[in-house]
Amino acid sequence: MSIERVHIDLAERGYDILIGSGLLADTQNYRDLPKGSVAAIVTNETIAPLFAARLQQALTPHFAQVRVIVLPDGEAHKGWPALNSIFDALLGANCDRKTVMFALGGGVVGDMTGFAAACYMRGVPYVQVPTTLLAQVDSSVGGKTAINHPLGKNMIGVFNQPLRVIADLDTLDTLPQRELVAGLAEVIKYGPIADAGFLDWIEANLDALKSRDKAALAHAIKRSCEIKAWVVAQDERETDLRAILNFGHTFGHAIETGLGYGEWLHGEAVGCGMVMAADLSARLGLIEPAYARRIRSVVERAGLPVVGPNLGVYRYLQLMRLDKKAQAGEIRFVVLEEPGRASVRGAREAVIGQVIETHTG
Amino acid sequence: MSIERVHIDLAERGYDILIGSGLLADTQNYRDLPKGSVAAIVTNETIAPLFAARLQQALTPHFAQVRVIVLPDGEAHKGWPALNSIFDALLGANCDRKTVMFALGGGVVGDMTGFAAACYMRGVPYVQVPTTLLAQVDSSVGGKTAINHPLGKNMIGVFNQPLRVIADLDTLDTLPQRELVAGLAEVIKYGPIADAGFLDWIEANLDALKSRDKAALAHAIKRSCEIKAWVVAQDERETDLRAILNFGHTFGHAIETGLGYGEWLHGEAVGCGMVMAADLSARLGLIEPAYARRIRSVVERAGLPVVGPNLGVYRYLQLMRLDKKAQAGEIRFVVLEEPGRASVRGAREAVIGQVIETHTG
Repeated sequence: MSIERVHIDLAERGYDILIGSGLLADTQNYRDLPKGSVAAIVTNETIAPLFAARLQQALTPHFAQVRVIVLPDGEAHKGWPALNSIFDALLGANCDRKTVMFALGGGVVGDMTGFAAACYMRGVPYVQVPTTLLAQVDSSVGGKTAINHPLGKNMIGVFNQPLRVIADLDTLDTLPQRELVAGLAEVIKYGPIADAGFLDWIEANLDALKSRDKAALAHAIKRSCEIKAWVVAQDERETDLRAILNFGHTFGHAIETGLGYGEWLHGEAVGCGMVMAADLSARLGLIEPAYARRIRSVVERAGLPVVGPNLGVYRYLQLMRLDKKAQAGEIRFVVLEEPGRASVRGAREAVIGQVIETHTG
Repeated sequence: MSIERVHIDLAERGYDILIGSGLLADTQNYRDLPKGSVAAIVTNETIAPLFAARLQQALTPHFAQVRVIVLPDGEAHKGWPALNSIFDALLGANCDRKTVMFALGGGVVGDMTGFAAACYMRGVPYVQVPTTLLAQVDSSVGGKTAINHPLGKNMIGVFNQPLRVIADLDTLDTLPQRELVAGLAEVIKYGPIADAGFLDWIEANLDALKSRDKAALAHAIKRSCEIKAWVVAQDERETDLRAILNFGHTFGHAIETGLGYGEWLHGEAVGCGMVMAADLSARLGLIEPAYARRIRSVVERAGLPVVGPNLGVYRYLQLMRLDKKAQAGEIRFVVLEEPGRASVRGAREAVIGQVIETHTG
């Protein structure tokens, strides 16, 4: 299978996403990175035994030392203590400003490594090596990095673009089915917000994707990255357009925070959140109710939850007021203006309450 | 007295430093800032009773809410717990991405506020309102932000330029003499590294500066900011030239870290560090020993320490290997190539050891 390449066009911070099989272990993919004496691979206890040695070996020709830093696994550890353990390890190994960091893992590892790279000695370069579908189609692309705060998800972070993204399809072979399905939520997302035809393709290929057909996965990842690249290139720091990538995320983050990080996977919460955001769009008169039902059906067929936890309308609203899109206390949502086009709008709390009551229980 | 204005030229991130009396309380100086519903003043327990109410009042016409966040005072609190308390306060007050932050205090408050502003919801704008001489001539200008790590000073941070710097000379009236003197260390610094004539002026005006003559202070601050602006505009992210601003800091940081943060003031450590760095430059044959002695004499006349604590050569070297300028294990120093011109060079540990033995005890 050939290597697909998607370029993120951000002038001097632009970079390539490579998509294909066997990329992680191919030392050629790391040849033209900045020269430093130390490479620091950040990964977690689940991913380390699967891929760390292979990446370490591929980096060895290019760096005098290749260190591996292993974090605990899971969204529950996406906070300061684990972030600080990265700094402890880097300082303990005398890593200097020429160190190159590698994020080997899913979205949590990617977000934390990108944030650590931004802050270590005020910035060292880093490479994303995403090993989950979610990270390959979404979190490793676009430079958003963060840790969670007890009062809100991804509240503390920066924009920090990687040098490169290496999306190796083979890493998906060992991904638990639940995580593969969670990743499909972000793939599905790109249809309604940016490419109505891509939703048709997803509906037609959903079974192939769920059974990990490599060609189907390669296309889904490439198209998702292309759409994300197009959006990010126009609005790197999310002043406006980029917010559409958060379709389903306002409801989704409320679910994640309300239940405590780690109960639902991020993609599961986003899947359910998209069902709610599509219904909201219909209630606002923007799209046909049939299109909202169609999104619900794709999400359900993918194997994602379509009914949110019963936290109560009051708690949902309270959590959503902390969303980063909120302005002057008004909760704002990514809504669908029509199939394949999204925008950000405020909504009355009465309507939001109806959506929550309809889709939780 | 007129208002002096120094522009930091960084394209779309460029900003002005205003220097004068009565600036902090003048609401006109905040009129053209971005509109947000909340202004968040970050200050410390020493500065809050002196100036927080005055700044709050000046901001009230421009923001619906003006919050004051009070940190514990001192370098010992320049770490994660205090940084996180800023995030707690911002999230607790439902501050959104349109919040404008104000750093009201010395270098520690400025560094922490700038870092918090960079990370809160991936970035909100901030204004520096420095209230110490050190912060007015150095730390509030140039966008370096950071917190300390137990293994090294300013190890965790980012570059984040403020919207504006408001250097109100009146805030220096209440500054303890020891802190005023510590600030003079960074003023003195700009002579040897960038403007030989400025060192002449400092020598001639040292008594006026120590007795807080407003005209002398205004000139010292303006000239220091001009030199810093010139350096930062050429090398915002410290790839090379900007490192010269760290003259005296490699030895100085070792003193601060070795004694534990807060024992010596930063400026005191830098003053002593400049004496050591000047001697190193002489031992490397770059400048005349007489010029190194002249720097020692100015530092001593200013009232700064010229003899470092007796940590032992081994411990100094160990601490300096963690300096951010170190590369591949080699300690690098800002040295004087000639009066008024500096560069960064490595040095053999034997020579460094001689310098340490000569100037500690």
